[in-house]
Amino acid sequence: MLTISPEEATATCTRALSKAGVPSVHADIQVELLLEAELRGRASHGLQRLPRVIERIRNGVCNPTTRGVGTWRGTSLYDVDGENGLGPVVAFSALKEISEKAKSAGIAIANVRNCNHIGMLALYAERVAKEGQILIALTTSEALVHPWGGRKALIGTNPIAIGVPASPAPFIVDMATSLVSMGQVHDYANRGEQLQHGWALDANGDPTLNATAAKEGAIAPFGEAKGYALGLAIEVLVASLTASALGTEVKGTLDSTHQCNKGDVFIVIEPAHGVAQHISRYLQTIRDCTPAKVERPVLVPGDRALIARRKSLENGVKLPAFVWNNIQALAR
Amino acid sequence: MLTISPEEATATCTRALSKAGVPSVHADIQVELLLEAELRGRASHGLQRLPRVIERIRNGVCNPTTRGVGTWRGTSLYDVDGENGLGPVVAFSALKEISEKAKSAGIAIANVRNCNHIGMLALYAERVAKEGQILIALTTSEALVHPWGGRKALIGTNPIAIGVPASPAPFIVDMATSLVSMGQVHDYANRGEQLQHGWALDANGDPTLNATAAKEGAIAPFGEAKGYALGLAIEVLVASLTASALGTEVKGTLDSTHQCNKGDVFIVIEPAHGVAQHISRYLQTIRDCTPAKVERPVLVPGDRALIARRKSLENGVKLPAFVWNNIQALAR
Repeated sequence: MLTISPEEATATCTRALSKAGVPSVHADIQVELLLEAELRGRASHGLQRLPRVIERIRNGVCNPTTRGVGTWRGTSLYDVDGENGLGPVVAFSALKEISEKAKSAGIAIANVRNCNHIGMLALYAERVAKEGQILIALTTSEALVHPWGGRKALIGTNPIAIGVPASPAPFIVDMATSLVSMGQVHDYANRGEQLQHGWALDANGDPTLNATAAKEGAIAPFGEAKGYALGLAIEVLVASLTASALGTEVKGTLDSTHQCNKGDVFIVIEPAHGVAQHISRYLQTIRDCTPAKVERPVLVPGDRALIARRKSLENGVKLPAFVWNNIQALAR
Repeated sequence: MLTISPEEATATCTRALSKAGVPSVHADIQVELLLEAELRGRASHGLQRLPRVIERIRNGVCNPTTRGVGTWRGTSLYDVDGENGLGPVVAFSALKEISEKAKSAGIAIANVRNCNHIGMLALYAERVAKEGQILIALTTSEALVHPWGGRKALIGTNPIAIGVPASPAPFIVDMATSLVSMGQVHDYANRGEQLQHGWALDANGDPTLNATAAKEGAIAPFGEAKGYALGLAIEVLVASLTASALGTEVKGTLDSTHQCNKGDVFIVIEPAHGVAQHISRYLQTIRDCTPAKVERPVLVPGDRALIARRKSLENGVKLPAFVWNNIQALAR
């Protein structure tokens, strides 16, 4: 593992995108999203994704110059054709429109289709919540998750993020609806380690502890039947709003050759007046709850990410040498 | 257990509400909601709740004559003061307003405070989805759930419902964010049965299998840390929108003496055009997924409730004798 300063990571990644023809404003947005995930310890959504972003541009399935084209369908509903743009570029552009609209309408929604992987949802939630608004973000992905009681991967890992204004930091939930990520399964396979019971099925749909076998199979939804219900609801809800692909038809967030046909939904809402303090106090009550194990204080979602971010800003981010060498080669 | 026909249940419950001074249009709405839960096998939200509804009216903490008063804050955001009205009466009235608004705006939200228990969320989702719109419904409740890794009940069971138009029936998710309900814990206690591992803590915050001890303690969130995050997000989101009470301050859905100070949020959205068939086909793919156990076909959320409803309409609903006798006494 190498330790890289955030400044060096930003400069090198931006140079790599620039060489691939990405306008500098767009490169800044894309790099910031990957770096913020890396800083928060979310390596799966971090800098390791940069080479694929560039490959997709080279393969013509990502157009780095567009911010997408939006149309208001109704006064508060913004339909966005992402025109195969960079995920974070299209997403932040759509968010700007609906955040402004929500100020007068109280609520506004952006339904985004044809846009590349938008990365870690937490950053969008944080940005919106820091400006005093609520964000609900939903997105779909390739089918990797089996229905509860089923043998085949038919549902995306479909994350949900929710951001609510609070102090000292906004309340941020950002979670996939799978029990583990396929990235974790790959890591276990690389290290030759066994998976835990209930994590995954093999290609035949039988439970397996063998990570290599699980790569060809399916991962479980989190929370058994309820988590399955939530993940499936996100799949269906996003497709109903964005007319995006469903289940095994979804392509383009993991590969380098297909147009990305999943959907992303953002809902921005104005909170009631004068409630942030009340919420902040309540969140502190949660943190102060007597823990089950003395050495593990109760955390509020988002706390761990902020602690990791502070450490990474001080000490730099740790990257596997091959990831960093790859990025450096792309920047040369 | 007694078997009662839906017609007799409706007539008797309506008479009981009428004797308590509930206008007949409001009584019909309240009874329908309780009966629909009963028909779907959701006894916890069924007819057993009627005596408490009446007690709350008699105690002056429920005003059965109001439908609440709404104010548009922004063009798409409807703030509702429920004026201590009957939950379903206030909720359906607010839903009507925002469903109409969503037709032109694309999306609209109702933030409801000061309204009594609104019952099973699935019925609202089904009504909206059958009219071709999407519903997201969130509501809070008394603190019964412990934070993940914490020892005390600080979070409501905070259900979420999502309805999406599809055929032959809309897609409906309706689930609490607790692993089990406190009602189940009481049932186990009544039968003297042991709880399962991980379901509950006792009053000291220690894990317990003793249902009677758990009644004074806390129930677990579903899905470990992720389910905890979702339940807490709903608590915070609803309070941020409705300025409702938080955590242990919430009262009035389980008792008969406090004003009900939780919050309810409804978001109605117009789906994209011509997507319902695509979604219906996808849901069928899910049902057709090879099951892990041959004898247990894969279900889509909502399927089980509809099967139960069909059977109950044919065979009547089964009620404990004391529940039905109690209701009959109230109707006399």
